[in-house]
Amino acid sequence: MLKPTPVTPDEVKRHNLARVLRHLHEDGELSRSDLVFLTGLNRSTIGSLVSDLAGADLVEEVSGVGGSRGRPSLVVRSKSKNVFVLAFDLRVDRIVCAAIGLGGEVLATLHRPRLDGPYPVENAIAAILESTDELFTKLPLGATWAGVGIAIPGVVETELGFVRKAPNLGWIDVPFGQDIERAFRSHMGVCPSVVLGNDANLGAIAEYVRGAATTSSSVVYLSGDVGVGGGVVLGGQVLTGGSGYAGELGHLVVNPNGQPCNCGSQGCWETEVGRDAILSAAGLRTGPDSFPELLELGKSDPEKMKQTLNQVGEWVGVGLVNLMNSIDPNYIVLGGHLADIYPYISEVVNRRVDQSRPDRKTRAEILLPSLSLDSPLVGAAEVAFGRLLSHPLQEMEQAFALV
Amino acid sequence: MLKPTPVTPDEVKRHNLARVLRHLHEDGELSRSDLVFLTGLNRSTIGSLVSDLAGADLVEEVSGVGGSRGRPSLVVRSKSKNVFVLAFDLRVDRIVCAAIGLGGEVLATLHRPRLDGPYPVENAIAAILESTDELFTKLPLGATWAGVGIAIPGVVETELGFVRKAPNLGWIDVPFGQDIERAFRSHMGVCPSVVLGNDANLGAIAEYVRGAATTSSSVVYLSGDVGVGGGVVLGGQVLTGGSGYAGELGHLVVNPNGQPCNCGSQGCWETEVGRDAILSAAGLRTGPDSFPELLELGKSDPEKMKQTLNQVGEWVGVGLVNLMNSIDPNYIVLGGHLADIYPYISEVVNRRVDQSRPDRKTRAEILLPSLSLDSPLVGAAEVAFGRLLSHPLQEMEQAFALV
Repeated sequence: MLKPTPVTPDEVKRHNLARVLRHLHEDGELSRSDLVFLTGLNRSTIGSLVSDLAGADLVEEVSGVGGSRGRPSLVVRSKSKNVFVLAFDLRVDRIVCAAIGLGGEVLATLHRPRLDGPYPVENAIAAILESTDELFTKLPLGATWAGVGIAIPGVVETELGFVRKAPNLGWIDVPFGQDIERAFRSHMGVCPSVVLGNDANLGAIAEYVRGAATTSSSVVYLSGDVGVGGGVVLGGQVLTGGSGYAGELGHLVVNPNGQPCNCGSQGCWETEVGRDAILSAAGLRTGPDSFPELLELGKSDPEKMKQTLNQVGEWVGVGLVNLMNSIDPNYIVLGGHLADIYPYISEVVNRRVDQSRPDRKTRAEILLPSLSLDSPLVGAAEVAFGRLLSHPLQEMEQAFALV
Repeated sequence: MLKPTPVTPDEVKRHNLARVLRHLHEDGELSRSDLVFLTGLNRSTIGSLVSDLAGADLVEEVSGVGGSRGRPSLVVRSKSKNVFVLAFDLRVDRIVCAAIGLGGEVLATLHRPRLDGPYPVENAIAAILESTDELFTKLPLGATWAGVGIAIPGVVETELGFVRKAPNLGWIDVPFGQDIERAFRSHMGVCPSVVLGNDANLGAIAEYVRGAATTSSSVVYLSGDVGVGGGVVLGGQVLTGGSGYAGELGHLVVNPNGQPCNCGSQGCWETEVGRDAILSAAGLRTGPDSFPELLELGKSDPEKMKQTLNQVGEWVGVGLVNLMNSIDPNYIVLGGHLADIYPYISEVVNRRVDQSRPDRKTRAEILLPSLSLDSPLVGAAEVAFGRLLSHPLQEMEQAFALV
């Protein structure tokens, strides 16, 4: 919609800086001509924007390969070692941490195991602070810390940094965003902006921005950890829903006469295809330690594994049919343990889907994640870059450099 | 997103005329002060816009009641008898037709029964032309015909006016928009813009714009005719999905071991709660004639009806739970035959929903349609007004007056 209020030159410039920086962040190295083409701005405007971004130490121009007729040509790229965010994924059995540079380069990672079960908030804060100290030792001096993103396995009010409910952590109504900002300030005197997100929503963002599903803006990501979570991206935006509970795909009822779920319902998708349901189907004891054992069984006898997981595959298929008939995404990305078992259930899943969607053009493509790190962690980094990407110069002025 | 390209004064004016006219169309009579408040524009701009719209015979200023301290005050209102669209809803057993004035006033309606079953395209065209002739006799001379909207029980590519699949009409790949424009031109020499839409999508638009769900922009509408269709409005926009099949809610699998569906799957929502499934549950013969009989049974013995429809209510509930856990709308409007039977199944439906969503704040409100006409018909009128509402003066210059 056109805005009737006047737009100031400063706003236009801020907006154009943001567009150029986002292209470099998401698409990688680009020539000035590429930027002219992608933004529709003229060559001299692009020149001036690139020079402003370079002046703020966000991008640099270097000799690229190719160019017309073999001449070396300049390309613009983000200075990924110079500006970074910290990303954390609070998983059921571990915390995954990373420092990720502008442009998406992974600068450092570490895993901290934790026990399955409730996780006191103060322990989570302590683990994040310790991990931050350790990550910082692996980063170049002078690098600029632009933000923090945290993936939470639960329902999150992103704007407020508020965790409404995270059953696998044992959290209800925790103002974790405020808590962690206060902790950073007291631990190291400063804190850039902190953004919390639901893990599956962040997974969907990651797969949409730089993963398996970049060619469409209509993507569902399924996280599989202990339960099943879902993130829905429509038109490039996360679907939050009327009450913040959109994408609670683990509680789609796929088997109305199935197992009781701790949500109060029965036969929810996660009671039928969650980690422990799969382990039970395979006759293994439930719990995080058995899953590698299951995957070993699959490797040694894939045919037996297919039979074992046949019914699990049916339930995965029923849920996917329901997503295609309600949201109709272009891509559905199976993450976490669903990615691990997909090779053994793909036949039965696709038979279910094809039965309901005989016209193959109208069914979503089922994909596995294509990121080297776990998708929610990458998504946490993406949202952590949000402020910098929309207000590049202002944020760089206020950001903190490692000393 | 701010546009870096310059906005011309003409575009700004066109945009502001459109905003003012849309407010008057959707909200009814408004004072100039109301318009200043709603648009954020200043008083003199509003005065000039209202005078332009009045000059085009779209609105008028009349004495309103109220006003501060009891003084009579002027209100602006759309000239509903002066500008109209035609709306058609191609239902399974009848065609419903209406002339609807700017502002939503129903100027004339008529019903044409048709036989359940395939419906040749040429018969549909003939019925629409005959209905148009009849409706025109009921409209004032000089009234301006601004558009045509048609609700189709099937999958429609709205931009192309193309019906991909309408099983209950027996249509596959019919360029119905072009067909009907050609027919209007040959029948009466002119044709304003024709917009086709899926019936449930149009129902969702109607309930969102002027029905039961106007206080939220996140609405699911369920149509119940022979089958079950769905329309999803998110952020004020219809969700079309990656392949145009979003909102195919009749094919949500609610009972994986249920009846085979003609879509190829089994236990689809419409096989369990479609019209004939309900009639079978009540021991009545299937077909359109039996439904009034069922409703009579309900009136005479409501308790027995509740027992009879208990299982139907369970399946309605399972589908609603799945919508809440995926799309999480604020409102779900039950249309068509689902509205008729809701009084008898509401207890079991709400028990199912509450079981899955114990926190009542996070569940969608279940509503019945609140429009006097059927919702898809009203939605067809809304989309038919689309061009006029976005380009008021240009469209009025090109529109056709009844002579």
